[in-house]
Amino acid sequence: MKIIAFDADDTLWDNEHYFQETEKKFFQLMENYLPQHTTARELLQTEVANIGLYGYGIKAFMLSMIETALRVSDGTIQPEVISRIIGFGKELLDKPVVLIDGVLDVLKALKPKYRLVLATKGDLLDQERKLRKSGIVEYFHHIEIMSEKKDTDFKKLVRHLDIPPSDFTMIGNSVKSDILPVLAIGGHAIHIPYQVTWGHEIAESQLEHVNFRQVGKIRDVLEFL
Amino acid sequence: MKIIAFDADDTLWDNEHYFQETEKKFFQLMENYLPQHTTARELLQTEVANIGLYGYGIKAFMLSMIETALRVSDGTIQPEVISRIIGFGKELLDKPVVLIDGVLDVLKALKPKYRLVLATKGDLLDQERKLRKSGIVEYFHHIEIMSEKKDTDFKKLVRHLDIPPSDFTMIGNSVKSDILPVLAIGGHAIHIPYQVTWGHEIAESQLEHVNFRQVGKIRDVLEFL
Repeated sequence: MKIIAFDADDTLWDNEHYFQETEKKFFQLMENYLPQHTTARELLQTEVANIGLYGYGIKAFMLSMIETALRVSDGTIQPEVISRIIGFGKELLDKPVVLIDGVLDVLKALKPKYRLVLATKGDLLDQERKLRKSGIVEYFHHIEIMSEKKDTDFKKLVRHLDIPPSDFTMIGNSVKSDILPVLAIGGHAIHIPYQVTWGHEIAESQLEHVNFRQVGKIRDVLEFL
Repeated sequence: MKIIAFDADDTLWDNEHYFQETEKKFFQLMENYLPQHTTARELLQTEVANIGLYGYGIKAFMLSMIETALRVSDGTIQPEVISRIIGFGKELLDKPVVLIDGVLDVLKALKPKYRLVLATKGDLLDQERKLRKSGIVEYFHHIEIMSEKKDTDFKKLVRHLDIPPSDFTMIGNSVKSDILPVLAIGGHAIHIPYQVTWGHEIAESQLEHVNFRQVGKIRDVLEFL
C-alpha cells in the first residue's frame, strides 16, 4: 500500500501563527530597549545561532528570547521582563490545537486507500502533546517525530516503512523541509503553502519536478490522490 | 530473536553526574540570595512543577533554573546571573559522551545473540546528539526516544518490535522508568543502580519479582544473558 505522509505544524494545524503572536508580544515588551524590527532581527540571529544546540520547538524559542533580551538590553533588563518571557512560553505550550479546515475530510477520504503517516519535526513532548490534543492520532499508521528533515532522515523513514521511495508522498507547507529532501530521495511531494512562514524556513518555491505538485488548500489533494 | 533494550543516560554513559555538577554551580551562583540547600529544594520544586509542560532534558533544566533564580531572588536577580545560567546550559549541551566501563564489551558480546534496542527518555535532539557522539549506534537494531517511560509506552514499543513482552528484557538504572513499567507489561528487567540518582527518580529498590534481577555493573549481565 502506498504511503501518504503529512507534516503537522502549519499543514494539519496552525502553529507558526501562535509563534508570531508571541514574537509580537516579545517585541513590544522590548520596546523600551529597541525598536520592534531590530529586536526581530536580533531574535532571528539568536535562534539561528542556537539551532544546532537547541533544535526546534518552544523551549528553544523561549531560551532564545531570553538570550536576546539579555543581549540587546546590554545586561540592564528588568528581571520582570524575563519572567514575562517565561510566561509567554508557557502560554504557547498550552495553546489549543486547531485543525486547519479540510484536514479531517482529507484524512477520512485517504485512510481507506493509503497508509497514512505523520512526519513532523520538533520537540518530542511538544509534538506528542499537540497530537493528543488534535484528536486525529487514530488516522495514522505510523508517527515519526524527527529532529531534522533532511534527505538522510527521509531515507531512514522510508527504509523503516519498508517501501520504495516512489511509493512515498509527502504533504507539507515547507519547501525546504517537506518537499526538496523528499524529491531528492525519489519520493513524491505536494506543497501547500501556509499564510506565514518562519524566516529561517523560506526557500524558493518556483519548483519544477515531475514528482512535485503545489496546491492551494489541503482539500485540493483529493483531486488526484 | 529476543530483544535486549538498554536505557542510555546513566546506563550506557554518564549523564546525571554532569547535571549535578551544573546544579552545584547554580547553587553557588545563587548563594547571595539563598543557602545552597534551599536553592536545591526550590529548583526541584520548579522542575517537578514544569515536567508536564517541559518534559525532560537540558533545555527544560535551563528554563527551570532561570525560573527558580527569578523567584528566589524575588525579582532582584542580576541579569548577569541569568546569562551565566544560559552559559551553564550550553556547556552541558556540549559535554562529551563517555561510555560507562564495560558497555562496549557487553554490546559486542550480546549483538550476535540478541536484537539490541536503545530505549531512552528525553529531549529528541539531546539524545540524538549523544548517540552520535557515543559511537555505538551501529550496535542497535532500533532506537526509540520516548517522552515518557510508562507501561503504555513500553507496550507500544513491544508491539512495534513485533515480539511478545516475555521476549523483551530492559536494562536500566531507574527502577521507576526502566524496571517497574516493563515488569508490569510482562517483560524482564535488569536494574543496574547508578551512583547518583535524580531526586524525582528515586523509587524503592527492594523489589522481588520472578522477571527481575539487579546487578552491580553492566558487565555482570553477561553472566546470565
